[in-house]
Amino acid sequence: MDYIHEILKIATTEPKKAVLATIIDVEGSAYRKEGAAMLIQEDGETIGVISGGCLENDLQERAKLLLEGESQCIVYDLKSEDDLSWGKGAGCNGVIRILLECIDDRLRKHLSRLHDLLQNGKDVFILKQLGKNFSVSNYLFFTEDTETFGEWAGAVPKQIDAIAAQEKSGLVWVNELSSYVYVQRFEPKPRLIIFGAGSDAVPLSHFASRTGFSVIVSDWREALCNRWRFPGADQLIIAFPREAATKISFSPRDFVVLLTHQFQQDQELLKLLLQQNLRYIGVIGSKERTKRLLGDQEIPRNVHSPVGLSIGAEGPEEIAISILAELIQLKKLRSPQKVRA
Amino acid sequence: MDYIHEILKIATTEPKKAVLATIIDVEGSAYRKEGAAMLIQEDGETIGVISGGCLENDLQERAKLLLEGESQCIVYDLKSEDDLSWGKGAGCNGVIRILLECIDDRLRKHLSRLHDLLQNGKDVFILKQLGKNFSVSNYLFFTEDTETFGEWAGAVPKQIDAIAAQEKSGLVWVNELSSYVYVQRFEPKPRLIIFGAGSDAVPLSHFASRTGFSVIVSDWREALCNRWRFPGADQLIIAFPREAATKISFSPRDFVVLLTHQFQQDQELLKLLLQQNLRYIGVIGSKERTKRLLGDQEIPRNVHSPVGLSIGAEGPEEIAISILAELIQLKKLRSPQKVRA
Repeated sequence: MDYIHEILKIATTEPKKAVLATIIDVEGSAYRKEGAAMLIQEDGETIGVISGGCLENDLQERAKLLLEGESQCIVYDLKSEDDLSWGKGAGCNGVIRILLECIDDRLRKHLSRLHDLLQNGKDVFILKQLGKNFSVSNYLFFTEDTETFGEWAGAVPKQIDAIAAQEKSGLVWVNELSSYVYVQRFEPKPRLIIFGAGSDAVPLSHFASRTGFSVIVSDWREALCNRWRFPGADQLIIAFPREAATKISFSPRDFVVLLTHQFQQDQELLKLLLQQNLRYIGVIGSKERTKRLLGDQEIPRNVHSPVGLSIGAEGPEEIAISILAELIQLKKLRSPQKVRA
Repeated sequence: MDYIHEILKIATTEPKKAVLATIIDVEGSAYRKEGAAMLIQEDGETIGVISGGCLENDLQERAKLLLEGESQCIVYDLKSEDDLSWGKGAGCNGVIRILLECIDDRLRKHLSRLHDLLQNGKDVFILKQLGKNFSVSNYLFFTEDTETFGEWAGAVPKQIDAIAAQEKSGLVWVNELSSYVYVQRFEPKPRLIIFGAGSDAVPLSHFASRTGFSVIVSDWREALCNRWRFPGADQLIIAFPREAATKISFSPRDFVVLLTHQFQQDQELLKLLLQQNLRYIGVIGSKERTKRLLGDQEIPRNVHSPVGLSIGAEGPEEIAISILAELIQLKKLRSPQKVRA
């Protein structure tokens, strides 16, 4: 789970000065990976998690000193063989590079644009050109639609798409610029669409929204599909499946779970959903029932039934955990996508 | 997850009349298994989940009629080949037998005793002798300590321990009684003890308590270990690991997770915990770090490191889901235990 969405919301609306800390490079094992970020506000309030608790205090101190100045790169070497060091103490065993950037008015404006794009379902890439001491000399945001914004003097490197196409966030040496570039792909919140608002939808929606998903719940019964039962959902759609499906513009990265517990509703929905290009369609019930839903055709690869990891889950809450475990596993497996072909 | 603990709390404290519905037998596939229970109060309020939503309304109607009378067994046959039936519609494909019992003053008193025993960490077994029409003619609660209570006329069957020793809840034919007996083992809430109250402990405690675990959180820093951060925890222990470990009477079914992120604290804790007989000791960090914690001895079988199912979890919330998925999986695997040897 990324905290970037929460960080962007706070950074662009709160009047406080703040520093953005981003892990840009990890050697060895670490609690968080490249791209993990934390916002440190001038009064010490923080949003996001960048380590298991060992680096936070040090970063807060450094951030306070930085509130006006240039960006800065901090290197934490946790590889030391000394068991008493705070590094190993924290259970890490690597070298972590963290970039600290003061959020000035220009960067705030760009982060606000980034936030809008993500909320509208767009992927956004960033290149940060690192100069001496790994401070940021240029940065450029761009989307697959070729929108660009940022602070970039001079020519943009030609391999920009190739650079962005790399799977992982991290540092790349760019010959053309004779410097390191930090590359990151920001993605919209993963979306979970739940059809059926019964007892098993409640913990699934709750756990999913707490784990960083944007949740939509749809059911034709207002007594079930309401804000009291689903306080964390981003959207409720009170409608029969057929109508609800027309109200949603599906994306290839959407996760969908069918919990209507009604054969005909599920059948109708499944037919509609199979016409879409979806990352995941989870169907509650046995594999045999799902086959009958499909009219005995083969179960397509993106249809998961029984839904959730096979951990022997019993009851709504445990099943919700098993589904989320499956979604997290799948989120990590996305294949590289082409950019600006 | 069982709702039995919540059901017992409500059934024994609220003044409303109520009916207890228990699944006593399942043929084929069903949403819930034998032992799943639901409380139906006289005014229609329900606690617990017994199906995916298809049986609840019918049960509520029947419960209302029963509020004074004898217990009753309902059979729902969801095997019909008719696709339009509500049975298959609900995604089930089996026969479910549900026992409805009106909670009178005597049963309420016994359920109250059952609740106390479970809260004190005891397993409790129940035998319900079923007469004609599968109504309950006798019932007996008993513990491994040979405490017994209930309403049982005549001799208790000799094979009582053998009957209770069966892994699954369900119906058994007892020759000695010339009748069916429903057997169920009630277990205390599974307990999760978390050492370390940092950012990753918060979602773990929250998800675990929502999924039916009784949660204890311990940390030496009151600023981290407090009710504001852990509203769902049953107990907080503000103390250093060494002291905290002496405050807890561990049981062989306890799950423990080490999240202190401090090498020395973890090392000290691990030494203490390995002297206990525990179901699960999860240690955050890499396998290599855990080996160093153990002084390079073999990692014992009940020590899980890295902690959680391997689903590529990133950040506190996802890691919490991966840990819970692992705990649920282990909960199901308990081997049969001897009773009243």
